[in-house]
Amino acid sequence: MSTSPLLEQLIDALRCLPGVGQKSAQRMAYHLLERERAGGRRLAERLAEAMEKVGHCERCRDFSESPLCPICSSPARDAQTLCIVETPADRLAIETATGYRGLYFVLQGRLSPLDGIGPRELGLDVLAARLATGEVAELIVATNPTVEGEATAHYLAQLARGHGVRPSRPAHGLPLGGELEYTDRGTLAHAFGTRAEILR
Amino acid sequence: MSTSPLLEQLIDALRCLPGVGQKSAQRMAYHLLERERAGGRRLAERLAEAMEKVGHCERCRDFSESPLCPICSSPARDAQTLCIVETPADRLAIETATGYRGLYFVLQGRLSPLDGIGPRELGLDVLAARLATGEVAELIVATNPTVEGEATAHYLAQLARGHGVRPSRPAHGLPLGGELEYTDRGTLAHAFGTRAEILR
Repeated sequence: MSTSPLLEQLIDALRCLPGVGQKSAQRMAYHLLERERAGGRRLAERLAEAMEKVGHCERCRDFSESPLCPICSSPARDAQTLCIVETPADRLAIETATGYRGLYFVLQGRLSPLDGIGPRELGLDVLAARLATGEVAELIVATNPTVEGEATAHYLAQLARGHGVRPSRPAHGLPLGGELEYTDRGTLAHAFGTRAEILR
Repeated sequence: MSTSPLLEQLIDALRCLPGVGQKSAQRMAYHLLERERAGGRRLAERLAEAMEKVGHCERCRDFSESPLCPICSSPARDAQTLCIVETPADRLAIETATGYRGLYFVLQGRLSPLDGIGPRELGLDVLAARLATGEVAELIVATNPTVEGEATAHYLAQLARGHGVRPSRPAHGLPLGGELEYTDRGTLAHAFGTRAEILR
């Protein structure tokens, strides 16, 4: 029993955050009340605003508070290359790690017929219409190397070829700095099978 | 670079939560936007309300939205026993785990002269006035068994004796279900030194 119903309600509400159970929620609530009231107030405002105003870019389906996100509306990006990712987090990872200057398309999921997620739910009709315009030359299919991600990649590659667009996929193999001994068997088998000749 | 400034601001604001860095904050923000907008809105409301309205009980200094917390104002609690804890979390732990029916006093810290935390900052003047009324018979000093917690306990025990109140301290020793081999040296030495005779 807490000494404050409002505090109980706050702890309860904090549990909607991923990875936060009763104990962490308690610690967070106490921390905010004891030492971070200003931060807590700011978080309340930002949360309310983001939940209300952040929608999806109508072109790439990533999060955006304007109809077109800054990347899709940037004239500096190369519209001939389109990279498909499953989630906004994947898009951010690519944008942060690589020097990619093309555009993105965020599926917000992957094909999963058993869960009722088909091409339409992933916006693939919109994507097909975009490929049909002929403005895209290469489609980089960066779905995850999981079973469902690979199935989605296969579907997307066929869709691309059907519109005369060249599909590609990021290379799979040993991670840089990793050790053979600790690499999972699937990755090692794949890397071994797709070995490349050392040219010089 | 995110596709939405509001999303960036939300991620930034989430980092005021304890144990939440850039990566976790990102994951939380994406999770709320993708799957938990209702939960996010509710969290924003609860946060704003708690930050504004939750203050401290004027009797025990625990969190409370009313001048007196439910425990201090309950006629069912035994006012002759007073338990001193460092934080509201400690109070909650005792309330949850034990059958304690007395009252509490929350220091909201521990004596730490180097950090400028003296008796006044912990409300010990208020506590002394309460002990002087003669309504308290036993003072259970449940500060943490750390160096500062022990120093605070020593100070509180003297304060209690000065007002004719019997000070006590929860027992220290081996945790139930723990193993000797994995118990830290300090605890083991203490438990060994304060061993009790097996009576029958």
